[in-house]
Amino acid sequence: MRTLIRDGTVVNATGRAVADVLVDGETIAAVTAPGLFTEAEKVIDASGKYVIPGGIDAHTHMEMPFGGTSSSDTFATGTTAAAWGGTTTIIDFAVQAKGTSLLTTLDKWHEKADGRCAVDYGFHMIISEVDDNSLKEMRPCIDAGVNSFKMFMAYPGVFYSTDGEILRAMQRAAETGSMIMMHAENGIAIDQLVAQALAAGRTDPVHHGLTRPPELEGEATARAIALAKVTGAPLYIVHLSARHALAAVAEARNTGQNVFAETCPQYLYLSIEDMAKPGFEGAKYVASPPLRSKDHQADLWRGLRTNDLSVVSTDHCPFCFKDQKELGRDDFSKIPNGMPGVEHRMDLLHQGVVAGEISLERWVEISSTTPARMFGLHGRKGAVTAGADADIVVYDPAAKQTISALTHHMNVDYSAYEGMEITGKVDTVLSRGTVVIADGAFHGREGHGKFLKRDLSSYLI
Amino acid sequence: MRTLIRDGTVVNATGRAVADVLVDGETIAAVTAPGLFTEAEKVIDASGKYVIPGGIDAHTHMEMPFGGTSSSDTFATGTTAAAWGGTTTIIDFAVQAKGTSLLTTLDKWHEKADGRCAVDYGFHMIISEVDDNSLKEMRPCIDAGVNSFKMFMAYPGVFYSTDGEILRAMQRAAETGSMIMMHAENGIAIDQLVAQALAAGRTDPVHHGLTRPPELEGEATARAIALAKVTGAPLYIVHLSARHALAAVAEARNTGQNVFAETCPQYLYLSIEDMAKPGFEGAKYVASPPLRSKDHQADLWRGLRTNDLSVVSTDHCPFCFKDQKELGRDDFSKIPNGMPGVEHRMDLLHQGVVAGEISLERWVEISSTTPARMFGLHGRKGAVTAGADADIVVYDPAAKQTISALTHHMNVDYSAYEGMEITGKVDTVLSRGTVVIADGAFHGREGHGKFLKRDLSSYLI
Amino acid sequence: MRTLIRDGTVVNATGRAVADVLVDGETIAAVTAPGLFTEAEKVIDASGKYVIPGGIDAHTHMEMPFGGTSSSDTFATGTTAAAWGGTTTIIDFAVQAKGTSLLTTLDKWHEKADGRCAVDYGFHMIISEVDDNSLKEMRPCIDAGVNSFKMFMAYPGVFYSTDGEILRAMQRAAETGSMIMMHAENGIAIDQLVAQALAAGRTDPVHHGLTRPPELEGEATARAIALAKVTGAPLYIVHLSARHALAAVAEARNTGQNVFAETCPQYLYLSIEDMAKPGFEGAKYVASPPLRSKDHQADLWRGLRTNDLSVVSTDHCPFCFKDQKELGRDDFSKIPNGMPGVEHRMDLLHQGVVAGEISLERWVEISSTTPARMFGLHGRKGAVTAGADADIVVYDPAAKQTISALTHHMNVDYSAYEGMEITGKVDTVLSRGTVVIADGAFHGREGHGKFLKRDLSSYLI
Amino acid sequence: MRTLIRDGTVVNATGRAVADVLVDGETIAAVTAPGLFTEAEKVIDASGKYVIPGGIDAHTHMEMPFGGTSSSDTFATGTTAAAWGGTTTIIDFAVQAKGTSLLTTLDKWHEKADGRCAVDYGFHMIISEVDDNSLKEMRPCIDAGVNSFKMFMAYPGVFYSTDGEILRAMQRAAETGSMIMMHAENGIAIDQLVAQALAAGRTDPVHHGLTRPPELEGEATARAIALAKVTGAPLYIVHLSARHALAAVAEARNTGQNVFAETCPQYLYLSIEDMAKPGFEGAKYVASPPLRSKDHQADLWRGLRTNDLSVVSTDHCPFCFKDQKELGRDDFSKIPNGMPGVEHRMDLLHQGVVAGEISLERWVEISSTTPARMFGLHGRKGAVTAGADADIVVYDPAAKQTISALTHHMNVDYSAYEGMEITGKVDTVLSRGTVVIADGAFHGREGHGKFLKRDLSSYLI
Repeated sequence: MRTLIRDGTVVNATGRAVADVLVDGETIAAVTAPGLFTEAEKVIDASGKYVIPGGIDAHTHMEMPFGGTSSSDTFATGTTAAAWGGTTTIIDFAVQAKGTSLLTTLDKWHEKADGRCAVDYGFHMIISEVDDNSLKEMRPCIDAGVNSFKMFMAYPGVFYSTDGEILRAMQRAAETGSMIMMHAENGIAIDQLVAQALAAGRTDPVHHGLTRPPELEGEATARAIALAKVTGAPLYIVHLSARHALAAVAEARNTGQNVFAETCPQYLYLSIEDMAKPGFEGAKYVASPPLRSKDHQADLWRGLRTNDLSVVSTDHCPFCFKDQKELGRDDFSKIPNGMPGVEHRMDLLHQGVVAGEISLERWVEISSTTPARMFGLHGRKGAVTAGADADIVVYDPAAKQTISALTHHMNVDYSAYEGMEITGKVDTVLSRGTVVIADGAFHGREGHGKFLKRDLSSYLI
Repeated sequence: MRTLIRDGTVVNATGRAVADVLVDGETIAAVTAPGLFTEAEKVIDASGKYVIPGGIDAHTHMEMPFGGTSSSDTFATGTTAAAWGGTTTIIDFAVQAKGTSLLTTLDKWHEKADGRCAVDYGFHMIISEVDDNSLKEMRPCIDAGVNSFKMFMAYPGVFYSTDGEILRAMQRAAETGSMIMMHAENGIAIDQLVAQALAAGRTDPVHHGLTRPPELEGEATARAIALAKVTGAPLYIVHLSARHALAAVAEARNTGQNVFAETCPQYLYLSIEDMAKPGFEGAKYVASPPLRSKDHQADLWRGLRTNDLSVVSTDHCPFCFKDQKELGRDDFSKIPNGMPGVEHRMDLLHQGVVAGEISLERWVEISSTTPARMFGLHGRKGAVTAGADADIVVYDPAAKQTISALTHHMNVDYSAYEGMEITGKVDTVLSRGTVVIADGAFHGREGHGKFLKRDLSSYLI
Repeated sequence: MRTLIRDGTVVNATGRAVADVLVDGETIAAVTAPGLFTEAEKVIDASGKYVIPGGIDAHTHMEMPFGGTSSSDTFATGTTAAAWGGTTTIIDFAVQAKGTSLLTTLDKWHEKADGRCAVDYGFHMIISEVDDNSLKEMRPCIDAGVNSFKMFMAYPGVFYSTDGEILRAMQRAAETGSMIMMHAENGIAIDQLVAQALAAGRTDPVHHGLTRPPELEGEATARAIALAKVTGAPLYIVHLSARHALAAVAEARNTGQNVFAETCPQYLYLSIEDMAKPGFEGAKYVASPPLRSKDHQADLWRGLRTNDLSVVSTDHCPFCFKDQKELGRDDFSKIPNGMPGVEHRMDLLHQGVVAGEISLERWVEISSTTPARMFGLHGRKGAVTAGADADIVVYDPAAKQTISALTHHMNVDYSAYEGMEITGKVDTVLSRGTVVIADGAFHGREGHGKFLKRDLSSYLI
Repeated sequence: MRTLIRDGTVVNATGRAVADVLVDGETIAAVTAPGLFTEAEKVIDASGKYVIPGGIDAHTHMEMPFGGTSSSDTFATGTTAAAWGGTTTIIDFAVQAKGTSLLTTLDKWHEKADGRCAVDYGFHMIISEVDDNSLKEMRPCIDAGVNSFKMFMAYPGVFYSTDGEILRAMQRAAETGSMIMMHAENGIAIDQLVAQALAAGRTDPVHHGLTRPPELEGEATARAIALAKVTGAPLYIVHLSARHALAAVAEARNTGQNVFAETCPQYLYLSIEDMAKPGFEGAKYVASPPLRSKDHQADLWRGLRTNDLSVVSTDHCPFCFKDQKELGRDDFSKIPNGMPGVEHRMDLLHQGVVAGEISLERWVEISSTTPARMFGLHGRKGAVTAGADADIVVYDPAAKQTISALTHHMNVDYSAYEGMEITGKVDTVLSRGTVVIADGAFHGREGHGKFLKRDLSSYLI
């Protein structure tokens, strides 16, 4: 089965050109001058549109257990929503429960996801318990294609690791060439501020933000960088939200240390003002790190331009407003942490192109090419190039749409971007050669998505 | 005429894959999975080799007048040597003589180069006289495809511009979207140190280096950045040689200012110790900025990794040791400034790959992809991709060679790298579809190379 | 003749205590526990008041020739006004006219000042012409007690020195242990902006400020620091006005380089908004560097606390609004540059104590102790201590006053602080043991003030 | 009883002058021009010598319980040794044992020290247990003259406080205007490195240093600063040993944050090479933070000049080599941490004056004036000035001596500076007007020293 995508503007991270893309089976067979091939079983006219590599969302949490409930998207619903939004790969997190081994955890997550995803998927591993066994299991995890290990400086008593535990895991990462991903907030200090706020009767959602000041994200980021320096481990800061942490990352990167960072669309477009909306509305925006004051947004866009921020992921972790977010109606600390987003990342970042914040090529780079190289999918994902998987999005830059919970495909009862008008829209999506979105309809299926055994990061020379 | 380059590892800035490249006429018609096409008039077997975009040397000085003499390579000999070394595009400098208009200068340089080059070429314009007329002529230069204007903070009385002149040219660059390139050394202060050294009888070549301390390069770099900040002009620092200037560039880039910098192979591999060689040997290494102490080299490699240095050019400006360099036998300030290098850039940078300083992809990026995007050749040069000019190098990573003046093709009687052993070697070179180097022989011709009317830089969004 | 100042709070830079001060002739004979001495020819009751070392204003311009006119205070009127304001030492500038030697210049300034000053005075030397003769004369100047040499990176064609000239003078300063004082603004670039503004018909006073952006003060400051680094010269940045320059100074000081800076009260209290006052009112505030936007003020106060700013001087250089400032009614570049201030420095800085910006001890330090040590008056001035000159101010911290041209003693027809209410007031002033201000009257005389042959700076170990 | 110290060079932090000092009872009655007074019960001829304020050692540990043993100097022996060395005030640490209240702890320390000290003394309080009770007791401690609270980021399970506990104590410090002192090393991470070293059989003393890398001191310092920023607490970093931490302090101080730091003589003169001496010799140098590589020393001296290091204390905490240090013969982690030093601080710092690292005034400032102002002894200690306590040292700058355990007065069987030749020597010491050292003999007595109820720090405006 051959599919020809004709006359589009093929955009890769380092350039754009009008070209045809020939897909043969699951891979891209050729990128050619327009008209070189004329025959194919299926022809897609992309004239006037962009032909870009499918998006890679390197940070999602599907059906993740959290405080007695679970995030509301399953791997099936979440990956379908991803496809709708032009994302053809997600990397989700297997979450080690205390007392469970990493490999058992991995099995459990395969059980959840295998046969259910609409697009390809991989896993990072969350290490909740650093002990000899966990450290020993890092190697078989890597061999199984899971070579990025997330740790938390936040959430004491849940995911939190001590600096000693982080040091040990980092030593192991350095030995194995694997990557430490870090949720960098000083959870120990934050917990005091939370307890003080609650004791003083400050229970509204906005206090979630006020008790997690950006200085304590900056501090933890700098600490993680120092531990990475001592151990030689590569480090990837997840969901960086504020200029304090950005400064720490930029300083380390200037010295050539292997430190990387992602931010998320919510930090680029939303702010703590949203968390202060009247009623309990602010709960919709409760995630960690929290939304910051608006003046951080320009710094984050600048970081995307300077490459101190290399990736934009969503940290998609939806909880319904009703029944789930409401658990924290009287106590912000009980609000499940997380926001939906996997469906709108490509569109939201495209607004940055429209506004002149980033170039077209940089849009592709931060949403697809760099995540692919960062997380060992190089050669397979992240570029429209011969030999790569035919994960391709035909994107119409001129179309208009409005984001709404009424129309989105994520399994969650609200949108953080309700009513936002967007320029640009996904037209057609191919996942490994199969058209999964076209003509405003989903043509894919649960189980089409395959597990991605990932290589080591391309950024670590 | 179709040429098929088969089974090589195609390396672009963002990735590598085994693929075939189909060349049709002067352009790349397709990059395909191996074996997709089988018929072509000419087939090149690239198995086991890299297939990379032809090198772009964005800083050369062919037959440049300098103090009564001229650099020893003509456009013919220099571009032939470039081709031997895997460089298929040079951007040379048209040099405004005082009292001559920019457009007349451009005509003069076209006269020198047109019909004589073995590979494609473009021009930057050196502004020696900033006056109303020169400023007015920037626009027609841009329209003629010459949109980068070099100025000098060094060489008072020759190329030197005052800060006021720089400010005016930068204002014009900001208005027109063109780029200011800067030779950043504080020539006014340096001239004092030179005069003092000569007055004290310190006339040996090494004093060329000692009278140009890196602090005065760092200072001028910071000053150029400040003037660019005030005017809004994009700025490209040429031949950055030392950590002081690098720090200024890194700081500006962290803030998102449009500041870029190149270094040169000589700063990565040679040092002031070479200038201190006994006899008059050191004269071979006299260029400005001068070679620095060895400890700067690690900083420059780091800068290449952090992208604070984006490009490596050669500043190729050869003068024969006999008769030319000898002009300064009794007075280092009379030694013609410049070193040969256009032939060995790709090889020398490949040693960085071999040594683990940079990745294979980064090698391609700093030597070809970024210069193409930086200087408005995007879509045409800098990538092995359908639609681009078929400027392609087949590079054998395993071959061995030794650099020597006896075997090099530049028209100069010495090599700065005499006896250096190199891993890797250019195997075959195509320039716009024509094989110009193959089987250890030059198959090109004078006049094959075309003038490149360049677009504005892709880096300025 | 012995004078006893009783029961005051003696405040020195490192502490305060209730104590008696015994003055014997021209010097302080003792500082004692209250009541230790009871007999003296004259007793001053200082209870409830501060007893502080007389202020030292290290930057004044009395009867300075400038563009055909002269600053409006003579040494007689200016030093009398200084005394009224609690300043008992000024260091004024001898200004080398082109074609005149430094020593002749010094003679000329002695002629102007000797026998006319109400308080003690010293000289810095402005070098307008750097040539072999000037450089040679630095040594006899130093021997004559004038060991700080001011240069200008601003005012091309008038005081401006090239970087080469600065380098030479700095080399000489390094050899002799003398200090280079720098007016750090990039005058060459500024002159272009001025010419452009005038050509565009922007002739109002505020354009004086707009054509001298703080980036160009920051740039020049960094350049002066780099030249000082290369030569080893001590450097003192005069009238620092903005955060850009402050950052450059702070960075150099962190590395331990001998770089110092002063700011002036006008930069702490006034802003570019004053220069934009309707009519020609803004001309009153025209000085260089210009007043900045208000947001710089907090940075300057912080700099005073961190000691990156070590001294506050006035740059007192008054021109009458009528006839003098009016010279620039149609062209801001013709407005004589300068503002009056010598009378109000101690009071204005005391407002910083009242507002909690600086401590009481720091007030004394930046206005008296540090200037004394900086400029070689250590042991004689700057502290209330046995053996020092009896330059003493009894300051009433609780008194109230309002600044006005109607009541001030400077020979100028306006006040930049008209109507400003001040907490604190000079009560009594002794200059070398003689009461010159008391009971709201001036008791001194022209010619009481002696020339101070200054030692080398105490800060250069 | 009046004592007259005649004809010495009185050196205070901001200047020096030949003057006489009249002591009346316990305080300085007057500082006068030489010869003003001629009658006194006792006359000390200080001609040719310095007359300086008695040293203040703000960091000592007398008879401190540590791992089953105690530091070997009692308050009696330690303060006597201090007197011998020209230190007339110590501030020691009351150490909260877990389960004991702060006030009980204070009582206990009074019991140890009261009536036994040869010179004046104060206490800081070590908080080992941050709970509601401890936090509540900070106020009565402050009222009792103990207003600086030391916490540890090192020594988990012993003195270690979590970031949450530190945050709470800092909040309380901010409310009360008291100071948090911090031992800033990441003890949690260090403990892992220690465990790994021991498990690998690396038990020698040098491994004490190798398992505590300077990056982990720098990290903790930055973290403490961030927590201080969030809470508004003043912060004093104790025993800063390396450039990493210094950089963090300098950066914070540039922003005007109330962050201060001390270093110790051992970091200025000794290095990790001492810890690597053959046999078990290295144990003599085991303290935390550990001695660093020699290249840090120049940075620390520079920090003393730039005032990023404001104080030099000793961290005097002696353990005898025999029986005490030997506890760790087979396991470096069991070596009692600490070195003797209280006796030699003034002499060792004077070598910095001799070597030109610091000025004479700066010597007095870092060893006496600043500690006095930092820790609320302003007006009483730290300056030779009327009204202050007559804590005075007559120091002979020309005398020679050799440090040795054979001759020192500390109760410990080795000297870390054995054989070091010193220029300068304490001649005479007065403590509150009483001669305690003179003519090479101790004339003081146990119990002469009084407890100092300290005010809040003078540095916090």
